[in-house]
Amino acid sequence: MQTMRETKQINGVDTAAMNQTVAAIKADPELAQFRFRAKNRAIRGGHNRSEVKEFYGAKQEHRTEKEPFVLDNDEPPVLLSEDAGPNPVEYAIQALLGCMTTTTLYKAAAQGIEIESIRSEVEGDIDLNGMLGLDRDVRPGYQEIRAKLRIKTKGPKDKVRDLYRYSPVYDTLSRPVPIKVEVQFEE
Amino acid sequence: MQTMRETKQINGVDTAAMNQTVAAIKADPELAQFRFRAKNRAIRGGHNRSEVKEFYGAKQEHRTEKEPFVLDNDEPPVLLSEDAGPNPVEYAIQALLGCMTTTTLYKAAAQGIEIESIRSEVEGDIDLNGMLGLDRDVRPGYQEIRAKLRIKTKGPKDKVRDLYRYSPVYDTLSRPVPIKVEVQFEE
Repeated sequence: MQTMRETKQINGVDTAAMNQTVAAIKADPELAQFRFRAKNRAIRGGHNRSEVKEFYGAKQEHRTEKEPFVLDNDEPPVLLSEDAGPNPVEYAIQALLGCMTTTTLYKAAAQGIEIESIRSEVEGDIDLNGMLGLDRDVRPGYQEIRAKLRIKTKGPKDKVRDLYRYSPVYDTLSRPVPIKVEVQFEE
Repeated sequence: MQTMRETKQINGVDTAAMNQTVAAIKADPELAQFRFRAKNRAIRGGHNRSEVKEFYGAKQEHRTEKEPFVLDNDEPPVLLSEDAGPNPVEYAIQALLGCMTTTTLYKAAAQGIEIESIRSEVEGDIDLNGMLGLDRDVRPGYQEIRAKLRIKTKGPKDKVRDLYRYSPVYDTLSRPVPIKVEVQFEE
């Protein structure tokens, strides 16, 4: 049994389950619709706290009974707060690394390609003149993001190299996303 | 002294320090250049771990002596992993909430407007047919993101309502960012 189990796992991904999932989605594309969510509340200054819990996907709600993941955002002293957590722009670029890594591992597994390791790093440039409204030609967000993926594999490099392009966060950051924001004032 | 301190703090932001920062940047825009960073390594399947530590800004390195913030990304069972943390697309939308909240509080403080509370929620749609490569017309990332900010303030609502638009993460997600990815294969 141990051996059977091992033959089905590539890069820590259960490829039999993955194949079943892909087949199910091909038969019923509605199974591929996911909706992810988060909540947040301000604490003080740059410090606020998010909770990540339920999401919808494959026609059902998930994590309904689980304790939420709790994430603290803060700003460092040079940005006038107390550094109780990474700041939101740091969360965004770590998500890029995490997503490119998982996407590469999963898509390689789907092709039967074993990856021994992935290490990565990222940096991105922000000019505060944008957020502060001091220069209308400067955007508030990242002007450029540079990432490096270091991949160890005995598999075909040409099939592995560009898999990160399917990463949902890579796509979300590199192409515009329609964002609808509703502001409500409470009494 | 207590009273003096209180008069300088609005929304938990030291407005005297904020005014000094803005004046310094106006005199020397180079002070506004920031570079944020993260590192990541794959653990198993959808589970990988980021570290967030040093960043550059205001002409110097910061957090050089501090322990890194450690963030675990994982995928839930329906996405074939063990749910050891939020997944990267959840990290991305919580960062949006955190950033819109901080931006609203800071920019309101700069105008002397007190905010009593901000609570927020967000959801976003992802169609896995994109990441899986099953439908070329479907993007891998978020197709749409919807957020709600609930703000409690006695201040002028028209001056508070749209401050979130200066949020660096809001801008980063809603407008395209150039991302350069270098893939290196290790022996």
